Amino acid sequence: MKVKVGINGYGTIGKRAASAIQRMDDMEVVGVTKTKPSYEARLAIKEGFPLYAAAQENVAEFEKEEIKLAGTLTDLIPKCDVIVDATPSGIGAMYKPIYEKAGVKAIFQGGEEHGISGISFNAFANYQEAWGAQFVRVVSCNTTGLVRTLFPIDRVFGIEKAFAALVRRGADPGDKKGSALNAIEPSLKLPTHHGIDVQTIMPWLPIRTMAVVTPTTMMHVHCVTVELRKKATENDILSVWDNVPRIRFVSGKHGIKSSAQIMELARDLGRPRGDFMEIIVWQDGIKVEGNTLYYYQAIHQESDIVPEIVDCVRSMMKIETDPMRSIRKTDKAMGIGK
Amino acid sequence: MKVKVGINGYGTIGKRAASAIQRMDDMEVVGVTKTKPSYEARLAIKEGFPLYAAAQENVAEFEKEEIKLAGTLTDLIPKCDVIVDATPSGIGAMYKPIYEKAGVKAIFQGGEEHGISGISFNAFANYQEAWGAQFVRVVSCNTTGLVRTLFPIDRVFGIEKAFAALVRRGADPGDKKGSALNAIEPSLKLPTHHGIDVQTIMPWLPIRTMAVVTPTTMMHVHCVTVELRKKATENDILSVWDNVPRIRFVSGKHGIKSSAQIMELARDLGRPRGDFMEIIVWQDGIKVEGNTLYYYQAIHQESDIVPEIVDCVRSMMKIETDPMRSIRKTDKAMGIGK
Amino acid sequence: MKVKVGINGYGTIGKRAASAIQRMDDMEVVGVTKTKPSYEARLAIKEGFPLYAAAQENVAEFEKEEIKLAGTLTDLIPKCDVIVDATPSGIGAMYKPIYEKAGVKAIFQGGEEHGISGISFNAFANYQEAWGAQFVRVVSCNTTGLVRTLFPIDRVFGIEKAFAALVRRGADPGDKKGSALNAIEPSLKLPTHHGIDVQTIMPWLPIRTMAVVTPTTMMHVHCVTVELRKKATENDILSVWDNVPRIRFVSGKHGIKSSAQIMELARDLGRPRGDFMEIIVWQDGIKVEGNTLYYYQAIHQESDIVPEIVDCVRSMMKIETDPMRSIRKTDKAMGIGK
Amino acid sequence: MKVKVGINGYGTIGKRAASAIQRMDDMEVVGVTKTKPSYEARLAIKEGFPLYAAAQENVAEFEKEEIKLAGTLTDLIPKCDVIVDATPSGIGAMYKPIYEKAGVKAIFQGGEEHGISGISFNAFANYQEAWGAQFVRVVSCNTTGLVRTLFPIDRVFGIEKAFAALVRRGADPGDKKGSALNAIEPSLKLPTHHGIDVQTIMPWLPIRTMAVVTPTTMMHVHCVTVELRKKATENDILSVWDNVPRIRFVSGKHGIKSSAQIMELARDLGRPRGDFMEIIVWQDGIKVEGNTLYYYQAIHQESDIVPEIVDCVRSMMKIETDPMRSIRKTDKAMGIGK
Repeated sequence: MKVKVGINGYGTIGKRAASAIQRMDDMEVVGVTKTKPSYEARLAIKEGFPLYAAAQENVAEFEKEEIKLAGTLTDLIPKCDVIVDATPSGIGAMYKPIYEKAGVKAIFQGGEEHGISGISFNAFANYQEAWGAQFVRVVSCNTTGLVRTLFPIDRVFGIEKAFAALVRRGADPGDKKGSALNAIEPSLKLPTHHGIDVQTIMPWLPIRTMAVVTPTTMMHVHCVTVELRKKATENDILSVWDNVPRIRFVSGKHGIKSSAQIMELARDLGRPRGDFMEIIVWQDGIKVEGNTLYYYQAIHQESDIVPEIVDCVRSMMKIETDPMRSIRKTDKAMGIGK
Repeated sequence: MKVKVGINGYGTIGKRAASAIQRMDDMEVVGVTKTKPSYEARLAIKEGFPLYAAAQENVAEFEKEEIKLAGTLTDLIPKCDVIVDATPSGIGAMYKPIYEKAGVKAIFQGGEEHGISGISFNAFANYQEAWGAQFVRVVSCNTTGLVRTLFPIDRVFGIEKAFAALVRRGADPGDKKGSALNAIEPSLKLPTHHGIDVQTIMPWLPIRTMAVVTPTTMMHVHCVTVELRKKATENDILSVWDNVPRIRFVSGKHGIKSSAQIMELARDLGRPRGDFMEIIVWQDGIKVEGNTLYYYQAIHQESDIVPEIVDCVRSMMKIETDPMRSIRKTDKAMGIGK
Repeated sequence: MKVKVGINGYGTIGKRAASAIQRMDDMEVVGVTKTKPSYEARLAIKEGFPLYAAAQENVAEFEKEEIKLAGTLTDLIPKCDVIVDATPSGIGAMYKPIYEKAGVKAIFQGGEEHGISGISFNAFANYQEAWGAQFVRVVSCNTTGLVRTLFPIDRVFGIEKAFAALVRRGADPGDKKGSALNAIEPSLKLPTHHGIDVQTIMPWLPIRTMAVVTPTTMMHVHCVTVELRKKATENDILSVWDNVPRIRFVSGKHGIKSSAQIMELARDLGRPRGDFMEIIVWQDGIKVEGNTLYYYQAIHQESDIVPEIVDCVRSMMKIETDPMRSIRKTDKAMGIGK
Repeated sequence: MKVKVGINGYGTIGKRAASAIQRMDDMEVVGVTKTKPSYEARLAIKEGFPLYAAAQENVAEFEKEEIKLAGTLTDLIPKCDVIVDATPSGIGAMYKPIYEKAGVKAIFQGGEEHGISGISFNAFANYQEAWGAQFVRVVSCNTTGLVRTLFPIDRVFGIEKAFAALVRRGADPGDKKGSALNAIEPSLKLPTHHGIDVQTIMPWLPIRTMAVVTPTTMMHVHCVTVELRKKATENDILSVWDNVPRIRFVSGKHGIKSSAQIMELARDLGRPRGDFMEIIVWQDGIKVEGNTLYYYQAIHQESDIVPEIVDCVRSMMKIETDPMRSIRKTDKAMGIGK
């Protein structure tokens, strides 16, 4: 029998999580919620997902637009084994008591604090920590990106110290709210929360981060420097990454020079929604000098956490013991691969 | 037997034309050309398209990168019934004598002059003009957009006069060259060529255009005003457009307010490459006052001409006499629909 | 004795109005207000303008930052002959009763409705209408731009009909809020308010407008078409504009092709704050065909209304009867000129 | 008698250098060159600078536009004590033999290699090195920025190791050529040349850099991390910078959060051309943890090197022995100050 998943918040992450879950053979979407009769609400229906109003007070607006509802969140919860809470940052914390009272498992997003669940998740790094848990937080897109590349490097070579300057995109493509149109804006509170958030998964890692936001909608780009404990060449590093999941190489020499060209590649490869769920590393943009490793990576903020959510469901529902088996299953169904 | 199509220039349009042709049951791609061993050359191979160097002088560079070629353009041409020339603006004219000498049919892009073929093409407006022709030009993305909405309006209500202000995107998403980063730049030569180009298909239409380029990668948007000969309401206009192919409505009220949100919808609908081959009209952004009609339309510059190319092949190769049958066949295979 | 002016709202317009008034010999700034101890509050003090809190409730925050206040708006009003209300759109209407009760004259911005004063102002077009009035609205940057170029054309050649497509900047340079980062967004409610607002000054003018917003911070650009009553050549038109104030020509041939390059010119000319208070017309971007005139104009949204505010003070305070004398005086003091 | 300076290349840097030199009482501009009769050529004349064609072959074009020339570069050189070569990157190297043959001193820009002169210049760090020299290179905007903040830190606390991630603007405001419109593009060749270029002035400094380019026209922003030899608090660091020239603090708490808001401040302060010749440090964006210092700085790429050019002239012409006296003199004339 398939695990029954409800999606609370059918937006940027919610709609992708729903699509991903629907592609798996061991789980299914039993309903999604929306606060407004937007085009995404219509999309949910078109996709065949039962649509629920997030709250009773939203129902009238849907009715006015003649959009058929299957009920409200209260009706959806009892149908679910696990809720993927894809509500905006900070809202998840407001829903937690509701899930708690209903006794339903829930996955929160990186916009929530680690304390919401006490467990922060990355499939390759700590799949087992979510085993059977009631509440788990899948870390944010940036944290996921840092963990994906740093965790294997740490395991193989040891990391003495890591630093990343995060050059963030200003808004998602379809978003109106976002950064200033023509400015670079630093995150003045130092160190920024990104490095600290990596430590929710790798508490032993001495990592610090700075961050600026820039007026683009296409991917975050990280400038990462790592002091290694063991000697390594560029090829050693590439070889380690080549053997772990959800990291993909591109090459400036082949014409993939910018974040926009990476996203163009995703479209050309026929990826769903033109998403790139892997972390993208420029293979001709890495360098080792002495014991210091420098590299650039690009993070598709709309989608990189989506396969992590799928794996998180499996761990929480105890339907797959082996992390790599879960990861491979997810990736195969999503068309993710080298 | 399928019509054999060669693609000269596997770039933004060429790769889309190749994908589209491959989806049809009455034509096939027998080869594509590339001047450099870029990532798009690799993509062609991955997609299973035989790869040819555009010229003998390019061969060495491919060999250096160990990319296997099926030959050069000279080898490709004899294998083709028709060449889709998707080379950059102005280059098509340089290739014409080669096609002419080889006796192969060719479709040029809107970047070439009307005079290159004497026939400018839009499937709904003048499918028959390309019938059996050796050379045809499929008009540009903007011209295609204007013809798609103006032609049916003219047929039903008559157009006394039309004007459009074209707000152009500055570059395609993956392009480096493009407009200034933070500026609006008008096309000072008036009237701009866009209206004049519409007249290559609708020579009777009194249309004038102005144009500015803006720093975005997402769609052109047209502000169109039309003086109608017959009285019409907004609903009359919408009803006409609803009954012709390749026009799609969106609604600001449902949250589709900007060109970026339209492209987001294309991704959500699972369109190949996130493309929108229809012309997009805001149904809540049209107005009739007296005999004047005002409307906005958005044009996906990367893809709207692609289905026109497919139909153009059918007309030139005389494999389908009925324009609407060709259009429907193309649209069905491409997932284009209301 | 100089006219005493208070500035309610020392932001984008307020700080420019203050600087402009301070350059005149017949008026002076007696105080400016601010709601927060921002850098602009500090700037006011640096500039020597007495600083007032907008309201009593704001005082504590200033004190916390040790910024010395001269009082609150209530203290400022009795010191003023006229208030320039440069508060955000819609807030002016909330202040009107306060000005009314205090019996102080006030100038509102174009963000308010015409009805706030019943008089909408442009110095060249209707200086006399503001004569001695208690409340006047100086129209918005876009309306000012349209009136500046259309009013003289109408007077000399007669306008049968005018249409403008407004390509708007998305935000001011220093603003965080603004348009989407990478999108074009049309104003769906048609006709847009801009043309209707022109009619508050030229009620006889048949004008319609459409508008889109684009992701740039540099100037609005208008695509204007005018049906003329009398025959005119391009040179006739340029000659009319050359003889009226606050229109300046640039030339694409000399390298001024975009809105950003216009602003660069303002910086090079040493204009205060790099502002361009004139409406900028591309002299090689105008065209007459039959009785239709086409032209492009660029509007510096941050500053074009500033000299209008100065002239408006003179008319309201009855200190200069001749509009052209006021305009010339203002322009000379501001360094505006051909 | 004033030092006679010629400006070869009256563009972004050249026009600023000319304006700056003209403000000094110990030097003057005797002529500027231009290759084309652009608006900047007209500006030079308006500013009263004798205009020379860069080469004989350019003369005809100026004559066609009826722009009066004082001659060509060959005529200008003998009139000069020193040439400021402000030609585009790499062109300076082509002019060097001409200056050499004519025996004229020349200042090159950071776009040239260090080897062009063997002396790379920053007024505070190594004023004496240029003393009496024939050829000197004033380092680039980014290098100038890094030297301005790192040199005093190194002198007072000692730097064990420095790293900077440079988040570069994509183009200058008026430029058409530049970065992609909506992308982040890393400099793949590591380490990037910026750190290496700092070592032309501080050869002992272990510094490495990475860099990305982003779609904005407003300032570069650096994320800098420094391992200090001596313990220091944030206040210690600020205090050091407060006591050296050409560093200015801003505060996010006062509303200066982004590069665009910094440039807005420059306009508000009445700086010529709205330029900020100081390096801008966010005083609430610095942090010391253990022996590591983190800070952000913003660099106005169009102007920060301009006062360095002025000081460089003094050192090369031996008209001022004391670096701080030269710096103070320059800064006072330019309105640079705390």
